[in-house]
Amino acid sequence: MNALSGKDLLSILDLTPESAGDLLDLADQVKGTPRAFSTALSGKVMAMIFEKPSLRTRVTFESGMFSLGGMAIYLSQDQVRMGDREPDYDVARNLTRWVQIIVARTYSHQTLLDLAQEATIPVINALSDWEHPCQALADFQTIRESFGKSKVTVTFVGDGNNVCHSLLLLGVMLGYRMRVACPKGYEPRHEIVRQAQSLAEASGGSVTIGHDPCALAKDSQVLYTDVWTSMGQEKEHEKRLRDFQGFQLNRELLALAAPEARVMHCLPAHRGEEITDDIIESEASVLYDQAENRLHSQKALLLRVLGEV
Amino acid sequence: MNALSGKDLLSILDLTPESAGDLLDLADQVKGTPRAFSTALSGKVMAMIFEKPSLRTRVTFESGMFSLGGMAIYLSQDQVRMGDREPDYDVARNLTRWVQIIVARTYSHQTLLDLAQEATIPVINALSDWEHPCQALADFQTIRESFGKSKVTVTFVGDGNNVCHSLLLLGVMLGYRMRVACPKGYEPRHEIVRQAQSLAEASGGSVTIGHDPCALAKDSQVLYTDVWTSMGQEKEHEKRLRDFQGFQLNRELLALAAPEARVMHCLPAHRGEEITDDIIESEASVLYDQAENRLHSQKALLLRVLGEV
Amino acid sequence: MNALSGKDLLSILDLTPESAGDLLDLADQVKGTPRAFSTALSGKVMAMIFEKPSLRTRVTFESGMFSLGGMAIYLSQDQVRMGDREPDYDVARNLTRWVQIIVARTYSHQTLLDLAQEATIPVINALSDWEHPCQALADFQTIRESFGKSKVTVTFVGDGNNVCHSLLLLGVMLGYRMRVACPKGYEPRHEIVRQAQSLAEASGGSVTIGHDPCALAKDSQVLYTDVWTSMGQEKEHEKRLRDFQGFQLNRELLALAAPEARVMHCLPAHRGEEITDDIIESEASVLYDQAENRLHSQKALLLRVLGEV
Repeated sequence: MNALSGKDLLSILDLTPESAGDLLDLADQVKGTPRAFSTALSGKVMAMIFEKPSLRTRVTFESGMFSLGGMAIYLSQDQVRMGDREPDYDVARNLTRWVQIIVARTYSHQTLLDLAQEATIPVINALSDWEHPCQALADFQTIRESFGKSKVTVTFVGDGNNVCHSLLLLGVMLGYRMRVACPKGYEPRHEIVRQAQSLAEASGGSVTIGHDPCALAKDSQVLYTDVWTSMGQEKEHEKRLRDFQGFQLNRELLALAAPEARVMHCLPAHRGEEITDDIIESEASVLYDQAENRLHSQKALLLRVLGEV
Repeated sequence: MNALSGKDLLSILDLTPESAGDLLDLADQVKGTPRAFSTALSGKVMAMIFEKPSLRTRVTFESGMFSLGGMAIYLSQDQVRMGDREPDYDVARNLTRWVQIIVARTYSHQTLLDLAQEATIPVINALSDWEHPCQALADFQTIRESFGKSKVTVTFVGDGNNVCHSLLLLGVMLGYRMRVACPKGYEPRHEIVRQAQSLAEASGGSVTIGHDPCALAKDSQVLYTDVWTSMGQEKEHEKRLRDFQGFQLNRELLALAAPEARVMHCLPAHRGEEITDDIIESEASVLYDQAENRLHSQKALLLRVLGEV
Repeated sequence: MNALSGKDLLSILDLTPESAGDLLDLADQVKGTPRAFSTALSGKVMAMIFEKPSLRTRVTFESGMFSLGGMAIYLSQDQVRMGDREPDYDVARNLTRWVQIIVARTYSHQTLLDLAQEATIPVINALSDWEHPCQALADFQTIRESFGKSKVTVTFVGDGNNVCHSLLLLGVMLGYRMRVACPKGYEPRHEIVRQAQSLAEASGGSVTIGHDPCALAKDSQVLYTDVWTSMGQEKEHEKRLRDFQGFQLNRELLALAAPEARVMHCLPAHRGEEITDDIIESEASVLYDQAENRLHSQKALLLRVLGEV
């Protein structure tokens, strides 16, 4: 079965409820019996084009590809200078001839669309300003590890950014009750909310966007946050610190959630800003499981996109 | 059979007409049946020392080495600081102890000569200011895909640079009719032209250097160009734009060539400068085949240099 | 047998006389029959975190890991920005989830201790400001190639730095007669000397620290030096040039050593500063054997730490 509607995973919308569920099942299998897949992508090569640096995404994709029998070539922006030395569509046309898949982290989502348009090989979104679908796959693998397939309430507290977008879309696609608590002006993009609502109608999930973190955290099984100032927004840091007052994921907020609630964060975390140290170190935290599941869920994705599994 | 006169491929002159033809035959085989060679260089390690960044050369060598069972270590100049942190001959002596082959992209051809002098392992020229032999091998693999072994007329229009040097030498070595159309002052180096003439006498090929692109393009089966301003020449950009007026590879020039003519460019291209967009996108263009053949022809080279094939 | 007292090799003190000897024996085996180990670490992944650039350490670890069937991911500081983008302990916790071993080159030894503290996988010191244990293993493999297991006199001439620390500790642990000749103020750290003296008592080796290079070089079987100004000390360069006058490893000093004496240096060398060109090129020099043995001894280390050999 192919996991994707088309050849690419640029957005959660490239998945269906069935293929997303299948990917998560395969991710569990990969985690349980990694050696069973150790030659599945033998001889396959992945090009990684990263306009921004990365630890998690880079190491999990490189390590994952190797553990499936393949190999990754990491190309940083100072090497490729996409758009400067060469237009992105020429980079795509060239890579199409030499490798089997492109994994790209770009500032602009448009760059991903351009790459995917010209490449005849699959292009995977490894973070753009619009979505972070690989993170969302790992997130729901992690949520299922805590709550099985029960459609719990997942509340994202913070900036309605790329991570929030993909989490929201995948959540409602799979039938979860999704909530977003953000300051005014930091809502997820209108188009995403509209798409999420439409998915919710089909799946039986729900979408709630609001500005009161306490009300929204109430009885949630998952509280999720991300940094307030992402890479490239450093100039807005002071303003954002002010705007996000009251949206910190801390002991008080967690006390409002369900007793069995789990705390999530896609990392890196700014301890003391969007999340407190004691929460990261608490029993409720599954942050490092999330990070680990990047590896397994991306391996599942690679298997479905490139393999014959 | 060993492809090279010595241990290194620093120049096309390290090949013979026989070994060059054999390499191109093997390149076709590698392209046709890549899996047949998937363990040929099992366990071999390649060090890549790149003083300048690269997309094509880097990805084709890394991907190619992996697809033969080996592995590449990419070392950028900021890592090695050859000549600064350590003299190039010490880099060569060290690498000789740990890896099986060195692939180097250098500003100065002398650096390559120094590396090859001290290394007891093969050194491959992955672009210097003097030659680009790996490009020329891919180019003639591509030309043969369009014209078989027919010794067609190949006209290089533009700067008589490193790419032109290797194309010219390999062309006449193989018996092709080679022409170069360049502005005055941008001729291929005298020593190269002299060597090309001497090769032409032996092979039955020919060399014509001139300054009239229209006259030289006439009835050519291949029109080839490269950027007017190469990496490191950015300061001369304005002057070069003026000096190369009339040397653009465009529809008018192509109309003068043979009806079956093909257009080539080693990429990256500056669309609208040395070549027009419509020509790149035309039926005559084999630019991306050229790029693809970097992979196959370099794999053939590695097989002959390192393997027992 | 596990080579290490704990899970990490941060210091020579993580070895015992027995495990160190065993590692050197295995290093000889690996050098003699590399193919016998070509799948020993199949599927294992190594993360390399390098705050400083490196040629020898990087290429030997990457190449070594590959030649054992595994794979290395090289992460430079501009990629990870450990301590800036993310605290070092979070880097450690993340990597623990995705790879099997961390090899780290850090400015501060404390960073290594932090990584090792949080990682549940082995952490290998690939150079810190305190020790360079991998270098010392290669050094004693090299010394044994010249002198067998005879406990010769090894004199380090120069800065009592990280390289000197590990050499001194491993030497006395194995029962060698170790001497250090350094300018006043450049002695090995007091704590290291104390530890070395304590090891010497147990092993029958000896430690002598002094300031007269001629007296200390006398009758030595090995003269060893390192650069006077290490990475990060560039501002002290002029002062150090003055302070180290008389400590150059040259023909005059070598004439005082034993007739069969060998000259060693961990490279890169500043020819004409701490060592003369003619000495590097002389029959007495085993510098490039040392460099080569980085590969073999580190492979032995990886086998003992990660493998079932």
